Amino acid sequence: MRLRVDLLPHGDYPDTVLVVDVLRATTTAGVYLERGARSLLLTASPERALELRSSGENREGPSESSANVLLGGERGGLPIPGFDFGNSPVEADSQNFTGKVIVMNTTNGTGAAHVAAATGKRVLLASLRNAHAAARRARALAVEEIAIVCAGSNGRASLEDIYTAGVLCEYLMSMGEAGIDDGARIALTVRRNASDPLEALSSSAHGVVLSRLGLGEDVRFSARPSESTLVPVLAETQDTEGALRFVTG
Amino acid sequence: MRLRVDLLPHGDYPDTVLVVDVLRATTTAGVYLERGARSLLLTASPERALELRSSGENREGPSESSANVLLGGERGGLPIPGFDFGNSPVEADSQNFTGKVIVMNTTNGTGAAHVAAATGKRVLLASLRNAHAAARRARALAVEEIAIVCAGSNGRASLEDIYTAGVLCEYLMSMGEAGIDDGARIALTVRRNASDPLEALSSSAHGVVLSRLGLGEDVRFSARPSESTLVPVLAETQDTEGALRFVTG
Repeated sequence: MRLRVDLLPHGDYPDTVLVVDVLRATTTAGVYLERGARSLLLTASPERALELRSSGENREGPSESSANVLLGGERGGLPIPGFDFGNSPVEADSQNFTGKVIVMNTTNGTGAAHVAAATGKRVLLASLRNAHAAARRARALAVEEIAIVCAGSNGRASLEDIYTAGVLCEYLMSMGEAGIDDGARIALTVRRNASDPLEALSSSAHGVVLSRLGLGEDVRFSARPSESTLVPVLAETQDTEGALRFVTG
Repeated sequence: MRLRVDLLPHGDYPDTVLVVDVLRATTTAGVYLERGARSLLLTASPERALELRSSGENREGPSESSANVLLGGERGGLPIPGFDFGNSPVEADSQNFTGKVIVMNTTNGTGAAHVAAATGKRVLLASLRNAHAAARRARALAVEEIAIVCAGSNGRASLEDIYTAGVLCEYLMSMGEAGIDDGARIALTVRRNASDPLEALSSSAHGVVLSRLGLGEDVRFSARPSESTLVPVLAETQDTEGALRFVTG
């Protein structure tokens, strides 16, 4: 098995891909499904998310009531006008989404998922909260390569995503032999040199920004390793309208 | 002073930029100038390098004899058909380039220099060989930010460039206070966890490829820190014909 870490989304994934945007998109995505959502639709733009609801289009079919469709996302860490929720795992964790379809768009994470899905045969969303389960699932699905894709922040590498990739690498390497690339070596080095997950996430540039925005509770929530066994998995029947559909794997 | 490391070329550089492609473009560039070359022209494509010579165009003016213009570069680590030299610092170090103009094009390094020069006010080429001198020069030139740009390899991060960026960060931080970003923290961590420069370079994916191509001597040559005080600097009169002109700083 080959184990590859892209410190930024690159593309060209022949096999299984774990997408990481730990602060906060892939953490929040898992919480939506934990709290009962039927599926997540990740769009490539906020406009597309608004259109999906207003037109009643979504992967559940045209009969879906728009009342069952909720929008979550952020730009610059803040909620998007017209959306129902921000990109906060703490906020999502306080809700009941049973039977709902959540349409998500965020600054970096949903774009990284689209890069992954363009070629990846199997695409999973990973965070610290579901790290062990995501690694186990990827190992079970992969044929020859597991790629971990760090979403980064506006085209630049993020410490918190690379730290999380390092945690995933450690779990994956404990499950069997793997040939690792430069990116995986860097992620493992970063992971082994951080004292703990909360220190890594809260000291990252994005962690500091979120704390300044009053969202420090989201950082703390996102820093709890393997608290969840739920792994969002890209559904085989993917998008029709420019959205990727993730369901509980 | 802000200290920023881009693990891959990103753009948007307001101030001073150090471009790193330690295996081998920025190492070789320094050797060309050390061995007497009058200037280096970094082109955006191999075709442009061949055109520059055949048309007699270069920054020294139309009167330049094409005999004074030599081409160096590589694709996939190997010399380019029609070029005079590969991208080998060892090969360059055995030559006398007094009075010559060298036109360079390589897979990653020359492209990274073009990204840096698109916005950077001052652009320097850095390697392990000139690390101390390059850091000192950048510190003297910079007003508010020093950005270190890792060229990477075909759009993916390279261990050897990030290690070199970590060495540059250590030198820069020893010269005075600096606020560092996530990329600089990652580079410093990678640098501090490698036993020595040769181990870092020779164990990187690209170092392994070069050794397999019989170019292990280039890897060893590139791994000698601060052996040179020569820093290639982007000339103020930059390109006219799509080439960047670097001279001894």
